[in-house]
Amino acid sequence: MLFQVRMDVSLPPDLDPEVRADLVAREKARALELQEEGVWPQLWRIVGEYANFSIFDVPSNHTLHDLLSSLPLFPYLRIQVTPLAHHPSKLD
Amino acid sequence: MLFQVRMDVSLPPDLDPEVRADLVAREKARALELQEEGVWPQLWRIVGEYANFSIFDVPSNHTLHDLLSSLPLFPYLRIQVTPLAHHPSKLD
Amino acid sequence: MLFQVRMDVSLPPDLDPEVRADLVAREKARALELQEEGVWPQLWRIVGEYANFSIFDVPSNHTLHDLLSSLPLFPYLRIQVTPLAHHPSKLD
Amino acid sequence: MLFQVRMDVSLPPDLDPEVRADLVAREKARALELQEEGVWPQLWRIVGEYANFSIFDVPSNHTLHDLLSSLPLFPYLRIQVTPLAHHPSKLD
Amino acid sequence: MLFQVRMDVSLPPDLDPEVRADLVAREKARALELQEEGVWPQLWRIVGEYANFSIFDVPSNHTLHDLLSSLPLFPYLRIQVTPLAHHPSKLD
Amino acid sequence: MLFQVRMDVSLPPDLDPEVRADLVAREKARALELQEEGVWPQLWRIVGEYANFSIFDVPSNHTLHDLLSSLPLFPYLRIQVTPLAHHPSKLD
Amino acid sequence: MLFQVRMDVSLPPDLDPEVRADLVAREKARALELQEEGVWPQLWRIVGEYANFSIFDVPSNHTLHDLLSSLPLFPYLRIQVTPLAHHPSKLD
Amino acid sequence: MLFQVRMDVSLPPDLDPEVRADLVAREKARALELQEEGVWPQLWRIVGEYANFSIFDVPSNHTLHDLLSSLPLFPYLRIQVTPLAHHPSKLD
Amino acid sequence: MLFQVRMDVSLPPDLDPEVRADLVAREKARALELQEEGVWPQLWRIVGEYANFSIFDVPSNHTLHDLLSSLPLFPYLRIQVTPLAHHPSKLD
Amino acid sequence: MLFQVRMDVSLPPDLDPEVRADLVAREKARALELQEEGVWPQLWRIVGEYANFSIFDVPSNHTLHDLLSSLPLFPYLRIQVTPLAHHPSKLD
Repeated sequence: MLFQVRMDVSLPPDLDPEVRADLVAREKARALELQEEGVWPQLWRIVGEYANFSIFDVPSNHTLHDLLSSLPLFPYLRIQVTPLAHHPSKLD
Repeated sequence: MLFQVRMDVSLPPDLDPEVRADLVAREKARALELQEEGVWPQLWRIVGEYANFSIFDVPSNHTLHDLLSSLPLFPYLRIQVTPLAHHPSKLD
Repeated sequence: MLFQVRMDVSLPPDLDPEVRADLVAREKARALELQEEGVWPQLWRIVGEYANFSIFDVPSNHTLHDLLSSLPLFPYLRIQVTPLAHHPSKLD
Repeated sequence: MLFQVRMDVSLPPDLDPEVRADLVAREKARALELQEEGVWPQLWRIVGEYANFSIFDVPSNHTLHDLLSSLPLFPYLRIQVTPLAHHPSKLD
Repeated sequence: MLFQVRMDVSLPPDLDPEVRADLVAREKARALELQEEGVWPQLWRIVGEYANFSIFDVPSNHTLHDLLSSLPLFPYLRIQVTPLAHHPSKLD
Repeated sequence: MLFQVRMDVSLPPDLDPEVRADLVAREKARALELQEEGVWPQLWRIVGEYANFSIFDVPSNHTLHDLLSSLPLFPYLRIQVTPLAHHPSKLD
Repeated sequence: MLFQVRMDVSLPPDLDPEVRADLVAREKARALELQEEGVWPQLWRIVGEYANFSIFDVPSNHTLHDLLSSLPLFPYLRIQVTPLAHHPSKLD
Repeated sequence: MLFQVRMDVSLPPDLDPEVRADLVAREKARALELQEEGVWPQLWRIVGEYANFSIFDVPSNHTLHDLLSSLPLFPYLRIQVTPLAHHPSKLD
Repeated sequence: MLFQVRMDVSLPPDLDPEVRADLVAREKARALELQEEGVWPQLWRIVGEYANFSIFDVPSNHTLHDLLSSLPLFPYLRIQVTPLAHHPSKLD
Repeated sequence: MLFQVRMDVSLPPDLDPEVRADLVAREKARALELQEEGVWPQLWRIVGEYANFSIFDVPSNHTLHDLLSSLPLFPYLRIQVTPLAHHPSKLD
């Protein structure tokens, strides 16, 4: 089941650089892990913004929330979730 | 080069049913054509809305505008375009 | 799987009264049918508005879109869908 | 009398972890208490957000405000309240 | 139980003048009736707008919706309802 | 001359508790004073929010600004002012 | 007593040209009249918009509403009113 | 003196095709004329929208309004004007 | 050439009182200076807000930006600029 | 390929003056460098705001993101990107 997810990151400018580097590294590791598991099939940078645009493929709403809240950057993210369905004009 | 595109359709409720059916059929044919050409690789319905969420893959801004304005439903669409870039945490 | 759904109805004031009465009657019949099937467990009127606030319980995003777009009033509805998950403070 | 209530939590990222843990624990205890009393019959997590979507069942506006402002997290909540009424298409 | 209610009227400019006059007259009669019953204790014009700002005093959400939807102008109104409670600094 | 005034309070969560208690006490004293003078005839709490909804009755715009800016909480308030006029359907 | 008033005009594009010309002529006459009376001391066009930005000088809220609703274009105007007061840095 | 101008066109879908073609042709002629005069040095299409993004170079606010309101499509345009100034980091 | 300018001030509540008093005093001095020079002919307080509503009369966009950014409070101001033109219904 | 880019700067008022001066100097140097390279052909100040309005000319979305995120002020910028295309009424 597919969901479009947009994440906007807002790290405080005065965050300790080490804390920041650690957060970002752990976020990347977790993102790679979820991509390898197949639940995060698409991930792009939005041009000019510290934000991404993603597609998640999960069995339920509950799983999606668990995955998103497991992200190390979660406390710094504004997340918008849009449920997607098959489109009748989609080429099979 | 990738762009995220959201299209919201607003056909007037009093549109002649034949005109409407013809428009929708031509829109579908054009959508299939563009998908076959490879420039519209992703297309989903947004749940509960007469709207889609798409990814376009085109060589330039200009081509994207030409494709979007060639859609038979173009006069009835509100379109939002977001340029996408490679994400540093994307699994290769 | 639960979704919160808000529907705002906007019927044109100059709609033919018979067409309107028929639409509203068919909407009600369909709403009762979906409630009996168990997929639309909660339905309230929002005070002062021609709008409802609902909970849907469906197996997938795709089913939810099918149900919503099967409503006779669908062309006159603005629908907002919010995916819900279990809350950790929910009393079992 | 039913009210739909949405609560968005924004705890400062630099909040002392013990203060935070204590606040969250007391919030959970108070939430369970209110659910046991029957005034907070529905409570869900909004997917991807530190927010909940709730239904309260209270005898008056005044009681609702007393309950909401008694929540330990109240100073950190943005709360939106929507009064609900019986819907004419509701299955009895 | 008190509610603040704002009503914005939007009558179509091309509405038949007799229909319009009749609607407005029936609205006024209904408004006076509800004021005499004591459920609509405060009613003001918002300066420069075809809108009013009101206080309703009703026993329940359900009653409030019944009263508001009984207004002859209801199909032409955008209504916003805000539940009110006693304020701790209110002079008794 | 009547004005509808909405005040939203946002005290910083880390404000010194004594400073806060003093501010709130002085605000209450000033609010009572203005009510006794008759210029602040209506004051309600907005349910679920640290906000009030008020009616002021003053001889001029200038007096209203003086009163509002004399409130001890003024630096922490977001204030919206709406001028009111007699409504033609008001019961005398 | 001064008020800042912004008026946005939206005449339907298919309005009968004679009706339109008559409305606009009567609006201009009324605007001149109110300026001569001294209650509408400032009036400018907002660049690129069918809108004006005005200052009204009136003895009360009620008078302001009467003047604004006496404008022939009133049914086609969106009006925003902002009460003004003396500024402490104003050069006398 | 430079101004950034965004124009969004909304022609009614049911506009007579000849009227529409005539309007669009006259708009193009006027746009070319103003470009030749040097007052409209930059003009681009916004991708996916029936809108343009322009720079105007005019001696005064008043001239800008005269030019914009002389456009044949003016009654169908939503126009936003932003005054521009020299930027201190601009390469000379 | 006239511009309508709205300035909203947001001084941090924890700003050192002396720094604040100095800033406000220098702002007032500069405001008086600009009024004496004739470039800031109108200045009002917006009722209930720490904001002003002004008219500037300057020879160019560039001058306006220089004046506004010379204000001591500039780093704490949110400024909105609207270019004004002669109105055809203005009494000469 | 052209993009319209708007950048709003928000430096914390309590930023160390030396850090600030260094950031601004490095931003200016980078801006000049990118202008010399020809990828940032247009750059203006938005009147009254700490913001700029720019045109970028780049071979791809990805390059644009690289350039924008290379700006020393990037962590303090809110950036909006709008893809541009050739306009059919553009004078060649």
